[in-house]
Amino acid sequence: MPNNLPFRNIGIAGIGLIGGSFAKSFACKGINIYGYDVSKNVLVQAVESNIFQGVTDEFDRFINFPLDLIYICLPVKSAIKFINNLGKINYTKPVTDACSTKGTIIKSAEENKLLFCGGHPIKGKEKSGFINADDNLYAGAKHIIVSIGNKELDNKLEQLHLMINMDVRKMSAHEHDEIFANVSHLPHLISFCLMDTVLTQNKDALSYAGGGFRDFTRIAASDAQMWSDIFFDNEEALIECVENLEKDIIKWKNTIKEGKVQELYNKIEQVSEQRRKL
Amino acid sequence: MPNNLPFRNIGIAGIGLIGGSFAKSFACKGINIYGYDVSKNVLVQAVESNIFQGVTDEFDRFINFPLDLIYICLPVKSAIKFINNLGKINYTKPVTDACSTKGTIIKSAEENKLLFCGGHPIKGKEKSGFINADDNLYAGAKHIIVSIGNKELDNKLEQLHLMINMDVRKMSAHEHDEIFANVSHLPHLISFCLMDTVLTQNKDALSYAGGGFRDFTRIAASDAQMWSDIFFDNEEALIECVENLEKDIIKWKNTIKEGKVQELYNKIEQVSEQRRKL
Repeated sequence: MPNNLPFRNIGIAGIGLIGGSFAKSFACKGINIYGYDVSKNVLVQAVESNIFQGVTDEFDRFINFPLDLIYICLPVKSAIKFINNLGKINYTKPVTDACSTKGTIIKSAEENKLLFCGGHPIKGKEKSGFINADDNLYAGAKHIIVSIGNKELDNKLEQLHLMINMDVRKMSAHEHDEIFANVSHLPHLISFCLMDTVLTQNKDALSYAGGGFRDFTRIAASDAQMWSDIFFDNEEALIECVENLEKDIIKWKNTIKEGKVQELYNKIEQVSEQRRKL
Repeated sequence: MPNNLPFRNIGIAGIGLIGGSFAKSFACKGINIYGYDVSKNVLVQAVESNIFQGVTDEFDRFINFPLDLIYICLPVKSAIKFINNLGKINYTKPVTDACSTKGTIIKSAEENKLLFCGGHPIKGKEKSGFINADDNLYAGAKHIIVSIGNKELDNKLEQLHLMINMDVRKMSAHEHDEIFANVSHLPHLISFCLMDTVLTQNKDALSYAGGGFRDFTRIAASDAQMWSDIFFDNEEALIECVENLEKDIIKWKNTIKEGKVQELYNKIEQVSEQRRKL
């Protein structure tokens, strides 16, 4: 077994796409992995994968595994419940999470006096579930660390994610939530809205959807529980983004309605140039 | 040379991604291809590709090539000018087009009394230009034929596109424009708008854009001239779609603001299920 591991035994709470991919990535580095999930079906798949030292659907059994770190990979709402349960038993060992919003999680972890550091891996798939987990999902992807001041834990978590070739960044919870409202939560919401609009207005048109529509709505196939949680959890920053977009849509619409040919061309040219740079 | 070709000599007006891909696809079937483009640079690339029997940037020279069909692959506005020029010389040989909107094109062709049938290949790329043209771009893709009543020409065009393995469908110009306002023009417009919003509000956030944002905005890298033309040409159907989407955005936003947890979950679940079916 490797000697220089930041954590020898990691417990993954929530073995879906995200937790499963971390489990597989860490297992490849010789870390012992323990799993917790409420779904019996997922536990069967986890056992069959042969990468876990133990799995359970019982909270008490899970926290009694010999864990050096609990990695919470649950949807936001369930993650907060889980943090509250850890708080109730005055859990003292290190805890991190992989939730897409950070404000509420950080607040709960602080209220429950956990030895905590927030995290957010910037990589997903439109397909959810342990069955789609991949030990290579995170290679090269960014991982954001949101500290609450436990420097030793922050550093060990940085080391852990560097081990699986992630590009680690650090920022505040507020900064994090504003960024991801813009580049993740807003596009997801609008992708859902557009599918809804087309389904309502002209469902038959969907059989003529080309690659553009498919790309644009790929994220509208995402998991309902996860995104519903995210939208409520990051409501404030998200609603601000939606309202900025609404104003922009009106401006673009008026450019078309008022026949401003050169202005529309310039607007498209400007954004398409920026998009090509991405 | 094959004997059963619907057209032996095709003139492609506009040798960009679309015209270039048709030129390459037809050339593979033994059809003689002639090209017209106003860009000297494109003409040089076209000559170097060795698939054209002749290329020119002069309208008069182009129509004097021995053509059995002119295939207009120009942006909508230029296509209409081209049709008007054919009308001025009372051009009598078959003409078709590949524009993404059909209402105005069909009207111009009728006014100019051309032997015409409209067309729209349902396949593109976010990268434009002859340099990105591909003889396999259209294999398996839908091709829509919008007839103005020239049955013999319609049938020959159907045969031509079946030869390059396209899935040919027929519909009216109005039906066509409504469908594509929904599944193509609206997503493109909103993708441009969202890029614009994020660039204006939080440009630095773009460095954290994950796969979802990239998918969602891939079409925002599209060609400005082409999309500006399309938006103006299909204004009526597009504005109706934008206004339907605006109403839906308000509904979704209010579901979040009013804390309707179950309703939001159900809405997402419903559209994501439909998207997964695509």
